[in-house]
Amino acid sequence: MKATIINIGDEILIGQVVNTNAAWMAEKLNQNGIAVDLVLTIADTKEAIVDALELAIARTDLVLITGGLGLTKDDITKRTLTDYFGMELKFHAPSFNNLQQLFAQFGRTPDDRYKVQAEMPDGAKVLINKVGAASGMWFERDGKVIVSMPGIPREVKYLMKYEVLPNLKMQFQFPSIMHYTVNVTGKGETDLAEMLTEFEQKLPSNIKLAYLPNSMIGVVRLRLSAYGEDVMVLETQLDHYIRKLPPVLGSLIYGEHKDTLERVIGQMLLKRKYTLGTAESCTGGNIAHKITSVAGCSAYYESSVIAYSNAVKRDLLGVKQETLDEHGAVSEQTVIEMARGTQKLLNVNCAIAVSGVAGPTGGSPEKPVGTIWVAVTENERIYTQKLQLGKDRLQNIERTTTIALNLLRRFLLDDLSNEAE
Amino acid sequence: MKATIINIGDEILIGQVVNTNAAWMAEKLNQNGIAVDLVLTIADTKEAIVDALELAIARTDLVLITGGLGLTKDDITKRTLTDYFGMELKFHAPSFNNLQQLFAQFGRTPDDRYKVQAEMPDGAKVLINKVGAASGMWFERDGKVIVSMPGIPREVKYLMKYEVLPNLKMQFQFPSIMHYTVNVTGKGETDLAEMLTEFEQKLPSNIKLAYLPNSMIGVVRLRLSAYGEDVMVLETQLDHYIRKLPPVLGSLIYGEHKDTLERVIGQMLLKRKYTLGTAESCTGGNIAHKITSVAGCSAYYESSVIAYSNAVKRDLLGVKQETLDEHGAVSEQTVIEMARGTQKLLNVNCAIAVSGVAGPTGGSPEKPVGTIWVAVTENERIYTQKLQLGKDRLQNIERTTTIALNLLRRFLLDDLSNEAE
Repeated sequence: MKATIINIGDEILIGQVVNTNAAWMAEKLNQNGIAVDLVLTIADTKEAIVDALELAIARTDLVLITGGLGLTKDDITKRTLTDYFGMELKFHAPSFNNLQQLFAQFGRTPDDRYKVQAEMPDGAKVLINKVGAASGMWFERDGKVIVSMPGIPREVKYLMKYEVLPNLKMQFQFPSIMHYTVNVTGKGETDLAEMLTEFEQKLPSNIKLAYLPNSMIGVVRLRLSAYGEDVMVLETQLDHYIRKLPPVLGSLIYGEHKDTLERVIGQMLLKRKYTLGTAESCTGGNIAHKITSVAGCSAYYESSVIAYSNAVKRDLLGVKQETLDEHGAVSEQTVIEMARGTQKLLNVNCAIAVSGVAGPTGGSPEKPVGTIWVAVTENERIYTQKLQLGKDRLQNIERTTTIALNLLRRFLLDDLSNEAE
Repeated sequence: MKATIINIGDEILIGQVVNTNAAWMAEKLNQNGIAVDLVLTIADTKEAIVDALELAIARTDLVLITGGLGLTKDDITKRTLTDYFGMELKFHAPSFNNLQQLFAQFGRTPDDRYKVQAEMPDGAKVLINKVGAASGMWFERDGKVIVSMPGIPREVKYLMKYEVLPNLKMQFQFPSIMHYTVNVTGKGETDLAEMLTEFEQKLPSNIKLAYLPNSMIGVVRLRLSAYGEDVMVLETQLDHYIRKLPPVLGSLIYGEHKDTLERVIGQMLLKRKYTLGTAESCTGGNIAHKITSVAGCSAYYESSVIAYSNAVKRDLLGVKQETLDEHGAVSEQTVIEMARGTQKLLNVNCAIAVSGVAGPTGGSPEKPVGTIWVAVTENERIYTQKLQLGKDRLQNIERTTTIALNLLRRFLLDDLSNEAE
């Protein structure tokens, strides 16, 4: 089955908004075995909508339209579609009931303007939108399906998940698909592709490997998708190839599916009944921010010191003045003393300490921008690493955060001891 | 002039990548008086490219194509366009020279595969891409312009800025356009639209107001665009309306153009020769992260304590045990003592202290999720505020960060003294 996505919205055409609906929908459709052939972004006019619709129906079997609905939109989309399919707008009681329920949550009742909003084309299947005011519409012509939804991402996700995909699955026959995602850090897309050359060559034609990199923070998601008829067969087959990844990628893998480094570390600390504190200089609180973005982190996360100034490194963390004088704030000796000072000050098992030159200025010939030292500790054990990153301040901060978190993960797994990185 | 943007790329159709090129290009084109009529995302096949091209040429005067170029792409796009315009591929020395220069930066020389990459359609204007390997191509037919560029955002930006827009301006007559952006926080888009109803009604038809909200962090950019013939006239006219905004919006405005709250505060602190420290509980380092994302912040930013646990609030920041027992960690009294403790511990003029329930769990009937206290200080002066936000942990962290930074800004401006918010 081939699909067209049509996004109606001036805000996309004038560049106010990035079209995230299209990406999310394309991913979901592909995961369900529906190939997206074309994505169209058009203006909220009758002419543009009809032109796009004719093009889409001519080329594909499924047309998913988002946007152009709602009180402030003058209902051009709804009227155009209703006319196009030779229908008429009629008051639709379930849509109005849904509106009343939404309003009731805020102790209000919808006024008469909303009676117009609850008018729906009389021959269409109406998709009740429990998270928003505008219902979706499902039209059919010559075995093809045309669906119209509001443009708000949360409402698109709701309608796709609970109405559009289940209805498509009831009406059409789709191949079975299974996905498995493994999350990797420490190597870029190109290096990973080289490491996985043989693995990819041996993949059967019904299993695809996709690389989903996030270069800002320095992680890559690898997604294996298996397509076929029988779910049981797919599961066995996918499982066979999943097992081949760890021998190739080793501890580059930090998790699967929705795992993040900060969540994985949280689980490891919980299991060991450990507490964690951080001492950050150049990352300026970003490591702490990542750790505390995990709900429930207070069970293992104690506190942090952001030691931007040397005075704080010395007075609060106990870094020796001689160390700062002799080695400088960006040095192995300083991060060791910062980490040890954090363990002592906050009385924690584990510490992460970072000091470096984030840039874009502040470098020297011996310590150019991007020179960063990291230390991680587990009780008495300690491990340090020197990084040499680029010149982009924000990217240096984000990547150092990922590397430092990953270093703690590998250190706790005892995966670093024999390494000279 | 009307334009179509065509993005070629399977990675967009399978949802691996969000189409950021289209948004950036649409914004730039609109800023230059070119309306975007249609955005098409298509697969990297000859048929799809020709279909899209015919549709685009029929509807618009300018067609900008990105993607589908480069060594790994089998050159389908270049071959299809060359055939479509009845041209032939010939070795293009300036493109190969450019490649040699790019390789020389890494001490390498391009091998023979790159001779093919330097082949260009013989009748097209070649746009040398100084930041990437694939040149752009400029075709013309019946007074319409069709441009093909690589898909990498950095290369699109380079070619648009230094080749496409300058060439268009030489060849066509465009209206003059001037933009002015004012950055606002403290009210949402709907409230702002209500406050600005009269302002908008009085705008002449050649001046448009656009709302560019970022609801995650809680700021709105308001962009005024003036279109006309004479730059001098536009400047005077735009200036007239810019002056009308502060009387309506007051201190909701925190900056203009690329100003961020953290940059504005940095300038204010520098001017006053003040130093700043932060004590964060529920924001977990995000305020510090924002402040330290500004290059040069070490001139005023001292350090921070992330006091997640009560022990650290007490032992490090000197919050009294009685205060924690009587009022709890999330209370006005606690953030006052945290702020005062920060000033004392770090010896700074200004402090920001935050304590709250970020969620999604941890709330109580008296202090539900989203209850957050903020204190800001300037030497002896202190100001506190209670927030009641939603249930989304990350949004609570981001919005509290914005509100806390804005509170310090307004407090330093002496804009809060008579207010009972």
